[in-house]
Amino acid sequence: MPEIKVGLAQTNPVVGDYQNNALEILRLMREANDSGVQLLVFGELALNGYPLGDLSYRADVIASGEAKLAEIVEASKGFHNLTVVLGHATVATVEKPALQSSDAIAHNSATVFRAGEIIGRYDKQRLPNYDVFDDWRNFIPGTQELIFEVAGEKCAVAICEDIWDESSSRPAALRAAGVSHLVVPNGSPYTRAKNKLRRDAARRFADGMALAYVNLTGGQDELVFDGDSFLLDSNGNEILTADMEPGLYTQDSPYADSKDEIQKLLDVLILGLRDYVQKTGQRKIVLGLSGGIDSALCAAIAKEAVGAQNVTGVLLPSRYSSDHSLSDAELLAKNLGIEHRTVPIDPAHQAFEASLPLSSLAQENIQARIRAVILMGISNSEGHLLISTGNKSEVAVGYSTMYGDAAGGFAPIKDVYKTDVWRLATAYNDRYDSFVIPENSIVKPPSAELRPGQLDQDSLPDYGLLDDVLGLLIEGKKTVTEVVAAGFDAETVTRIDGMVRASEWKRSQGAIGTKTTEVAFGRGRRVPLTTRFGKL
Amino acid sequence: MPEIKVGLAQTNPVVGDYQNNALEILRLMREANDSGVQLLVFGELALNGYPLGDLSYRADVIASGEAKLAEIVEASKGFHNLTVVLGHATVATVEKPALQSSDAIAHNSATVFRAGEIIGRYDKQRLPNYDVFDDWRNFIPGTQELIFEVAGEKCAVAICEDIWDESSSRPAALRAAGVSHLVVPNGSPYTRAKNKLRRDAARRFADGMALAYVNLTGGQDELVFDGDSFLLDSNGNEILTADMEPGLYTQDSPYADSKDEIQKLLDVLILGLRDYVQKTGQRKIVLGLSGGIDSALCAAIAKEAVGAQNVTGVLLPSRYSSDHSLSDAELLAKNLGIEHRTVPIDPAHQAFEASLPLSSLAQENIQARIRAVILMGISNSEGHLLISTGNKSEVAVGYSTMYGDAAGGFAPIKDVYKTDVWRLATAYNDRYDSFVIPENSIVKPPSAELRPGQLDQDSLPDYGLLDDVLGLLIEGKKTVTEVVAAGFDAETVTRIDGMVRASEWKRSQGAIGTKTTEVAFGRGRRVPLTTRFGKL
Repeated sequence: MPEIKVGLAQTNPVVGDYQNNALEILRLMREANDSGVQLLVFGELALNGYPLGDLSYRADVIASGEAKLAEIVEASKGFHNLTVVLGHATVATVEKPALQSSDAIAHNSATVFRAGEIIGRYDKQRLPNYDVFDDWRNFIPGTQELIFEVAGEKCAVAICEDIWDESSSRPAALRAAGVSHLVVPNGSPYTRAKNKLRRDAARRFADGMALAYVNLTGGQDELVFDGDSFLLDSNGNEILTADMEPGLYTQDSPYADSKDEIQKLLDVLILGLRDYVQKTGQRKIVLGLSGGIDSALCAAIAKEAVGAQNVTGVLLPSRYSSDHSLSDAELLAKNLGIEHRTVPIDPAHQAFEASLPLSSLAQENIQARIRAVILMGISNSEGHLLISTGNKSEVAVGYSTMYGDAAGGFAPIKDVYKTDVWRLATAYNDRYDSFVIPENSIVKPPSAELRPGQLDQDSLPDYGLLDDVLGLLIEGKKTVTEVVAAGFDAETVTRIDGMVRASEWKRSQGAIGTKTTEVAFGRGRRVPLTTRFGKL
Repeated sequence: MPEIKVGLAQTNPVVGDYQNNALEILRLMREANDSGVQLLVFGELALNGYPLGDLSYRADVIASGEAKLAEIVEASKGFHNLTVVLGHATVATVEKPALQSSDAIAHNSATVFRAGEIIGRYDKQRLPNYDVFDDWRNFIPGTQELIFEVAGEKCAVAICEDIWDESSSRPAALRAAGVSHLVVPNGSPYTRAKNKLRRDAARRFADGMALAYVNLTGGQDELVFDGDSFLLDSNGNEILTADMEPGLYTQDSPYADSKDEIQKLLDVLILGLRDYVQKTGQRKIVLGLSGGIDSALCAAIAKEAVGAQNVTGVLLPSRYSSDHSLSDAELLAKNLGIEHRTVPIDPAHQAFEASLPLSSLAQENIQARIRAVILMGISNSEGHLLISTGNKSEVAVGYSTMYGDAAGGFAPIKDVYKTDVWRLATAYNDRYDSFVIPENSIVKPPSAELRPGQLDQDSLPDYGLLDDVLGLLIEGKKTVTEVVAAGFDAETVTRIDGMVRASEWKRSQGAIGTKTTEVAFGRGRRVPLTTRFGKL
């Protein structure tokens, strides 16, 4: 876009916090104006926060956003040469299409305004209804183009899903209408493959026009918007790339280096946890430290998210804990500079044993549950958020104790496979060029230590194999037959698939945690708990 | 429909259990044929089970259903005068509409067949995307009418949501085409208001045609399909009414009496729990008995659902338990004829107290969590399903302990307000004309008994007031301002609304339980955990 000076305004809104979201919007408008930006583009629903979910049904939620928009437009009076494109929700002005059976009352819109005057409004036309997206449930599609001029150039708006529609006839029509610049506000959540997919979609839709792709940044429940806004010139060359930080990006900004994939994943996990804590008005985190790799990585993420002074690690040794469990956990706490305490679980364990007879499985589970009682006791007494340290491999096959290690308000690595947990631990240590996460936690064989000499691999296939099969079954959406055809042992695949099915009820009660893959356990995967398909 | 002898086939399918679903379908086909039925109508997706959720994305799930359909059609060869309308999923044969951004690959269909020959297939055209429904996410809409003849009369098909479209032009077009009979397979979940709403929709759509409305029956996760199929003649008179039982209903069947609303609610709660237990391959239920009304009602529901011999009640007295807690719980167990055991929680309570300092809130919560550890210990050791006994009033305001009394695989009364819990207890006793649920459990003031002399009403508004306000906020979707305008105290309403918001995270980890209202906590209510709207 050499003809127009474009600013990409990446904000980190809180859903429903219009006052603070607007302050940040105004701050970036002023900064852009001062920098000579002519066209400033914000992300999707940047004013309201995204996704609104069923809050979008509430007239008061929509109306107070519109009132705030009016204030922002009014405040733009002083900025004579700044055209702003701002995402927000509006009470719908067109009827639902006949095909839409929903309770939606609002459009997912972007308003274009300049110097106190509204130039027009565009309403998102393609409303995604797959994965985590419920836009068709929550919004009414728009039907009109909005073409406006900036510095003599014709511009048009598309919002997020609009540009993913491969059969769209809009690009050709817009070009025919003389449009040279597309502005695209997005609420595009992170997945590991997403930065390439975004560019593919943008280049396809741009079709010879320049395109400003602006995403949100920040965590919102299980989603992390990872910024990654960019600007394509009319040849499809990327001439500006934002990273994950909020702020104003212009062509005067230095180009961002694209990070290593695992380092970026680590940043995303930190941001997801940090924003959940901060946006829900919390400050401190507590977690159990087992000496193992999952809790070590979660402690490191927690430290980066909220600061070492706000993290408490609790060592909860049992009669089956090995010496290295305690020493590895203590070393980790020391390396991270976080507080740690030790609360042995044997007194409570003995009390329960004296109270009721327990099968061997119940004997194992009860230890995990005693730990949860202690951790939640600290959480309730001192106001810490308890985080659950389970990884995706465990969550997928139900290798966790309900109301035990599954307990917590947030599960930072629930969408990270075990094999990536190890990679992340190494990536974390690389940042400090030191074994902050103790080498022993990385190299020792994983164990739940709920009975003498227990190893994860006694109950589960090797994690490398397990993760490969899970990746095909879950993200790959392959059937057992297809996975076997890909070269895996039939009995192993059938067993893994059976474990995944049998633990749907556990996941239905799981803590939220940051989505990192194409199919995360959470809002984006909606399967019955009760089903017998494939069991015959 | 005096011209055609119609049979309404109410089945209780298990999602994905095609073998058993097909056996029941074939059984009813044979029975209908033997009874001289000419047109036999099954419910929506009666072959596959409904809702399929994201299983509908799986080619193997759809294909094996289609293979089973072919077997059923083949088996109909012997029934020369029986036309069957059967709901099932099909690999889509038309493109997605441009507006549909989903991963769907299948239609939600009904195939019409007779004597081994397929007459045609109808694909559902209106795909609901509100409340618990994700049909637009999971299916591709059809575009064609299917008109077929039975005994010289023209018939057409509509599926469930199709007839709720008030602006539909189809009835007029079908009448103009000479159609005299509409057949409507449904997957319509129970709510208390639903039987009237169904008839309103059917009469509006029928518009002078006869209409056979056939629903599923049975529990599927949080939904209960409550049967209630009916037949309208061309004047809109209801000439046949089914109750909740599976089976074949014809005009030779006796007319069902419509039950008292609370008695029907009780039947629905029993069915929801029974089918969750049976369809997930379980048999036994365990629950804590506090002597209070919630656990008493849940125990009664459990007994009706799985039989007294399969229910274990556990009394879990603490240092704060009153004498009547134990005596009321013991009397209940005796009256129900269920096993009961007593496991005092004080030994574990003391062990935890000695292990860590606890705030007063944490002191309360820890008792609830110790109970959960014991109940889950029994569940794990003996294979019982733990049920959680919280009611909707408590769940709404977060008056429960996470991983404590909230623990369980199913929560039978989570969508029943406390004031209705009392009504249901009385309705249950009415069935036996006896205080099976002890009078004292009904009349005593509710208490969690987590500290000396504690009463629910110390922390919560009076339940009558609380339930009225919650009903307006949740099912009524009113704003705080609107509820206050309706005559409620502003401070009370604001406080209740604040408690509802603050406990979203708790509900996000809650057990599933039977939906009974227009807005149940669960799949049908999708709100962010992180939001500040209304907090300013």
